[in-house]
Amino acid sequence: MRTIDWVDGYPLIVEQTLLPGELRFIALSTVDDVVAAIVRLAVRGAPALGVAGAMGVALAARLGGDVDADVRRLRAARPTAVNLAWGVDRAAARLPEGADAVLAEALAIRDEEIAAAHEMGRRGADLLDTLVDRSPRILTHCNAGGLATVEYGTALAPIRTLHERGRLAQVLTAETRPLLQGARLTAWELAEAGIAHRLIGDSAGPALMAQGYVDAVVVGADRICANGDVLNKIGTYAHALGAHAAGLPFLVVAPESTVDTATKSGADVEIEQRSGEELLGVGGRRTAPAGTTALNPAFDVTPAALITAIVTEARVIRLDLGELP
Amino acid sequence: MRTIDWVDGYPLIVEQTLLPGELRFIALSTVDDVVAAIVRLAVRGAPALGVAGAMGVALAARLGGDVDADVRRLRAARPTAVNLAWGVDRAAARLPEGADAVLAEALAIRDEEIAAAHEMGRRGADLLDTLVDRSPRILTHCNAGGLATVEYGTALAPIRTLHERGRLAQVLTAETRPLLQGARLTAWELAEAGIAHRLIGDSAGPALMAQGYVDAVVVGADRICANGDVLNKIGTYAHALGAHAAGLPFLVVAPESTVDTATKSGADVEIEQRSGEELLGVGGRRTAPAGTTALNPAFDVTPAALITAIVTEARVIRLDLGELP
Repeated sequence: MRTIDWVDGYPLIVEQTLLPGELRFIALSTVDDVVAAIVRLAVRGAPALGVAGAMGVALAARLGGDVDADVRRLRAARPTAVNLAWGVDRAAARLPEGADAVLAEALAIRDEEIAAAHEMGRRGADLLDTLVDRSPRILTHCNAGGLATVEYGTALAPIRTLHERGRLAQVLTAETRPLLQGARLTAWELAEAGIAHRLIGDSAGPALMAQGYVDAVVVGADRICANGDVLNKIGTYAHALGAHAAGLPFLVVAPESTVDTATKSGADVEIEQRSGEELLGVGGRRTAPAGTTALNPAFDVTPAALITAIVTEARVIRLDLGELP
Repeated sequence: MRTIDWVDGYPLIVEQTLLPGELRFIALSTVDDVVAAIVRLAVRGAPALGVAGAMGVALAARLGGDVDADVRRLRAARPTAVNLAWGVDRAAARLPEGADAVLAEALAIRDEEIAAAHEMGRRGADLLDTLVDRSPRILTHCNAGGLATVEYGTALAPIRTLHERGRLAQVLTAETRPLLQGARLTAWELAEAGIAHRLIGDSAGPALMAQGYVDAVVVGADRICANGDVLNKIGTYAHALGAHAAGLPFLVVAPESTVDTATKSGADVEIEQRSGEELLGVGGRRTAPAGTTALNPAFDVTPAALITAIVTEARVIRLDLGELP
C-alpha cells in the first residue's frame, strides 16, 4: 500500500483524516484537490509531501491552465514543510521539457523515497541486531511510519524489516498526546502489517523501560542538528531519559533531508507552540475547566548525549562512539 | 469548601464525577448512599475515604438497623483503600458508647485530616522557600489536592500555602492520561482558588523543565517504601527523570499513613495493571484501531535517588541528605 501514487493520470492518496476508522483512497483530479489534501493533512510527513508537491506540478502540466500560479499555490500549501517546496521545485524545473518529463521527475522522486525507506529499514534492523541480544521489544513514539512516507516508513522501517526477518518480538506505541498519532496511525499501520503491538500512555514509557518491558527505543526526527541534537515530536526527550536510565539503545531513524548541519544545536531552534485547544479537550469534548489555558509545545530537543545512533538511508552515525552528522 | 462534611445529621459530599462541569453537593441519607458514593469514586483519595468510612458508621449508628452488617459493607466498598477500613474501624470501636460517641470520633478524624493537610502545606512551603530562590513555577501531576482530602490537599497543600503567602508564580498541571485527573480535577481546584496555572501534556513535563519553564516538581504518593522509593500515579517517574536532568527539586508530599516501612523498596510492590480500555478510547470514542490492545500500568516507582525530600504532616525527610523514612 502506498500513501500516495500516480494512477490513471491522477495522484491517488490515502485520506489519512479518516484513519483508523476507514481506509479510503481518493483521486486528486485538480490542482485545487492537491492543495486541499495537503492543507487538511490528508497527506502528511516530509517524504510524502515532497512526492505530493511534485505530482501536483505533474498534474498542473497535464491539465494546462496557469501552471506558474499552480506551482506557487502548491509551494505555499504548507509553508514550513521544506520537503514540499523541494518536490515542487524539482518537478517544476522540468516544465520546459513538457508534461511527460515533469511526470517522470515526480515518479523518480516517488521511487527514490521508497528506496530510501527500505534502506533505512535495512540499516536500522542490522544495527538493532548488533545492539540487542534477542528479538527486540521496541518502543516508538508518534507516527514515523509508512503513512508519513510513500510506504514502509522511517522509524517504522527497521521495525518492519525486523518483522519480515522474523526477528521482532513486539512494538509498544505511545499514544502521543495531544493528537494521538501513535494511537490512531502507528497502531493502525502495525495492525495492517500483522505486527504484534500494544498501545501505552506517553508517560508510561520510562516506567515500562525501568520495569524491563522494552529492549530498544526507535523514533523519527523533524530536524537533526550539527552536534547530533534531535528535534522530534514532544515526548521524545522523556523516552530518551528513560532509555538512558535503563541502559537501552535509543535510535533515531530519518532521511538525510532532515540533517541540518547549518543549525549548531537544539538550543538554536525555536520550538513551535501549538494551540492549547488541542489539550483542553479530547474527542471534541472539553475536559478542562473554562478558566484553564494550556501550554502546548509541539516538539522537544533530545540531546545527542542520550542518543545511541542516527540512521539515514545513506549511513549510520554512532553518536555513542563520538561520530557526528 | 470541604469534599466531605457532616451537615444536618448526614454526610454531605462533593459529587466529584460531575467535575469540572458542575459543582454539586449531595447529602448521603442512607448507608447504601455512602457505599455507592465510595464505589463510583464520588469520594476518592485516602484521607477523604477515611472520613467517609467513619461518617458512614456514624450514620449507621444514628439510623439503627443491622449496624454490624453496615460496618462490613462500608469496609468492603473499596477493598484496596487501606484508609477506608482504618476510618471504619476507628469509628466502629466507639459503637458501645452510643451514636453520639461514634459521630464525635468521625468528626475528630475529619478535623485531624484537615489539620494534617495544612501542616503539610506549611512544611512544604517552608522547604520550597529554602530550595528555590524566587516565587516558584511548580509542576504537579494527577490530583493530590483538596478533592483527595477533606480540604487543602497533600501535594497541592504547599502550592496553596505559597499562593496565600504571595510567593507562587504559576502551576503547570500535567493532564495525567488516561483518566485526566490533572486536566479535570487539579485544574478545577486551581481555578477555584484563583491560582495561575496552565495545563500541559504529560510527556511535555521533562522538555519544559529542560527549557527553563519550571522551578520545582511537587507530587503526592500512594505508598512510600522504607528506602524512600515512592509509588505514585503513572508518569511521576518520567517527571522525576526530567527534574533530575534539569537539576530541579523534586518533592513528594503525603500523609504519614502512606509511609510503609514494612516494604523495603519499590521492587517489592506489584504494579496494578488497569483495563486497556481507558487508553484505547478518549471521551467515549474509540481512537485506536479494532485490533489494538493496550498496556496500562496505574502506578510507577520513583527511586529515592531522584527525590529531594518527602514532606508529611509530621516531618521533612531529606532523601538528598541521606535521611530515610
